[in-house]
Amino acid sequence: MRAVVMQDRRLRVAELPDPVPGEGEVLVDVLACGICGSDLHCAQHGAEFNEAVKTAHGVGMFDLKRPIVLGHEFVGRVVAYGPRTTGRLPLGSRVVSVPALARPARTFLGFTGPETPGGYAERMVLSETLLLEVPDHLPTEQAALTEPLAVAHHAVARAGLGADDVPLVVGCGPIGLAVIAVLRMRGAGPIVAADFSAERRRLAEALGADVVVDPAQESPYRSWAQATAAGPHGAAPGVLPGGKSRPTVAFECVGVPGVVQQIITGSPARTRIVVAGLCMTSDSFEPAQALLKELELRFAMMYSPKEFARTFAHLAGGDFDVAPLVTRTVGLDEVPEVFASLSATPEDAKVLIVPAR
Amino acid sequence: MRAVVMQDRRLRVAELPDPVPGEGEVLVDVLACGICGSDLHCAQHGAEFNEAVKTAHGVGMFDLKRPIVLGHEFVGRVVAYGPRTTGRLPLGSRVVSVPALARPARTFLGFTGPETPGGYAERMVLSETLLLEVPDHLPTEQAALTEPLAVAHHAVARAGLGADDVPLVVGCGPIGLAVIAVLRMRGAGPIVAADFSAERRRLAEALGADVVVDPAQESPYRSWAQATAAGPHGAAPGVLPGGKSRPTVAFECVGVPGVVQQIITGSPARTRIVVAGLCMTSDSFEPAQALLKELELRFAMMYSPKEFARTFAHLAGGDFDVAPLVTRTVGLDEVPEVFASLSATPEDAKVLIVPAR
Repeated sequence: MRAVVMQDRRLRVAELPDPVPGEGEVLVDVLACGICGSDLHCAQHGAEFNEAVKTAHGVGMFDLKRPIVLGHEFVGRVVAYGPRTTGRLPLGSRVVSVPALARPARTFLGFTGPETPGGYAERMVLSETLLLEVPDHLPTEQAALTEPLAVAHHAVARAGLGADDVPLVVGCGPIGLAVIAVLRMRGAGPIVAADFSAERRRLAEALGADVVVDPAQESPYRSWAQATAAGPHGAAPGVLPGGKSRPTVAFECVGVPGVVQQIITGSPARTRIVVAGLCMTSDSFEPAQALLKELELRFAMMYSPKEFARTFAHLAGGDFDVAPLVTRTVGLDEVPEVFASLSATPEDAKVLIVPAR
Repeated sequence: MRAVVMQDRRLRVAELPDPVPGEGEVLVDVLACGICGSDLHCAQHGAEFNEAVKTAHGVGMFDLKRPIVLGHEFVGRVVAYGPRTTGRLPLGSRVVSVPALARPARTFLGFTGPETPGGYAERMVLSETLLLEVPDHLPTEQAALTEPLAVAHHAVARAGLGADDVPLVVGCGPIGLAVIAVLRMRGAGPIVAADFSAERRRLAEALGADVVVDPAQESPYRSWAQATAAGPHGAAPGVLPGGKSRPTVAFECVGVPGVVQQIITGSPARTRIVVAGLCMTSDSFEPAQALLKELELRFAMMYSPKEFARTFAHLAGGDFDVAPLVTRTVGLDEVPEVFASLSATPEDAKVLIVPAR
């Protein structure tokens, strides 16, 4: 089969043997697979990232000396069952899965080698017990958004979102946009979103942001304060019963140094700041400011299998309108070039790889 | 009356007019007043601190151009009632109060001028409605600990302490020791505490720490991991039902740069880190580590009047054994010298000023 292989930080299209499903596993044709910021991180800062994973969890996530087939935001079509499977889904069923195999040794699909490739390939193997069937009415392109939406679902869960919270989303890349979609689905509002890119601000509005701000033109924190004072959707109480201000929650979805401190400076007292952006370098902050305002920094990463399933149920149930998130589809051949240019093309939100293209 | 006055970062004993109680206020003789780390901060970093307060809340806390009478951890004896008071407590009653006056303009006792002095003085004025009567059986020295214990009570509340949490207290100065006392009162354990000073480690044990560590000799984080594995007091389940590790919570009670990152590095995944130490300079951290472990940084400052009252009720009810916290009492004349040397004398935990001495 054809696949995109990463080695020594470079991506190239290669011919690989089809992966072989083990016990309890199925072989799928990859129908679509999103390109994720983590994939870019893995290519650009793989060694540092692995070091950070080792420090955090005692063991690294991948072996950079070996070729890696990226891709953990995939939709597949079942083409064959391996040994000791039940065959509960008909061949031809479209499926999604958390990007892992139910093997004794941890296998993160999308960060391993060609024997268990990620979705940057024509075929991959998945664990039958982890499969979620994609219903006919849900387009493949939207099903491929399950994973990034699950990340956003988890980030919003980490915020402990309450009915009165006024959210600010800093950065409208794929994760920021997915957070906006989840916030909108949860009925939060007004949602304030900030990004330097006009295209991304347009997408933020399409996905449900009520107020979008270009930080080059005005302060997102001022707009946030105004939105907080303006009260919930439709209604207009400046404050809650009892004279309290509405609580505030901020989502850091940028992942570059300095943004956390900007949010600390701009946040009202008691704001919960969910840090979802992955910043690979040291960062600095002013602890006295955070202390005097009694802020909270809650770091959010990944999701549980239950959150993945719940997100998928919302997607299948039509609770999200996330079609605008996908801004482009590409074939395998285009991946190396797209990959190299992606961090410089803010007009792209989610780019999907369609191997059959 | 005699009082210790701070101006231009220097403390001196001065003769001041007695303060005059306004409407709803009482005049008290100060029986005892603790010296707090914030007082030292105010003298050493007053301008920066005020700047941080302004950034956080839009208005500064004190006017450094004017003389300030410090002292917000006081016990008084009622000696006169001002106008429009009810006189509900007999003259001679011992009282504590949150360090504020119930005036329209915010007045933080202990950070204002000689008209409304703090407890580094022979007399001060308090709001009658805020008074809590000290019962006969509670020694003045212990009642003076209400305020720092309320700070610790609030820090532990910010942690959202659960029955299974294994706490680590980093730094055993007055706040760290008070946190240990509150954790012990709440039945948490095993409590792991770390400090470079042998005297403070001895105090940590006296106040209820189960494991005390000298970071110069061994890693507090290793001891914490062992304590976590060892299970709750008496019992010995290494893990919780369902195979989960016990949750962990850390208290940063040092307030110097670098400690937050040490805790990030040393903490297990999902640890809530309560930052109670006030660090007046920029600090740096590794966001990728915090993200990969999904840590939380919860900054804690002060307490609510309700938390102050609840802490006092515990103290009066004998739920704490906090006598070891007070390591020295001094007269007003000694304050300037003690103040200058306090950060270099780790054998001191809480030093009380007794103006009548």
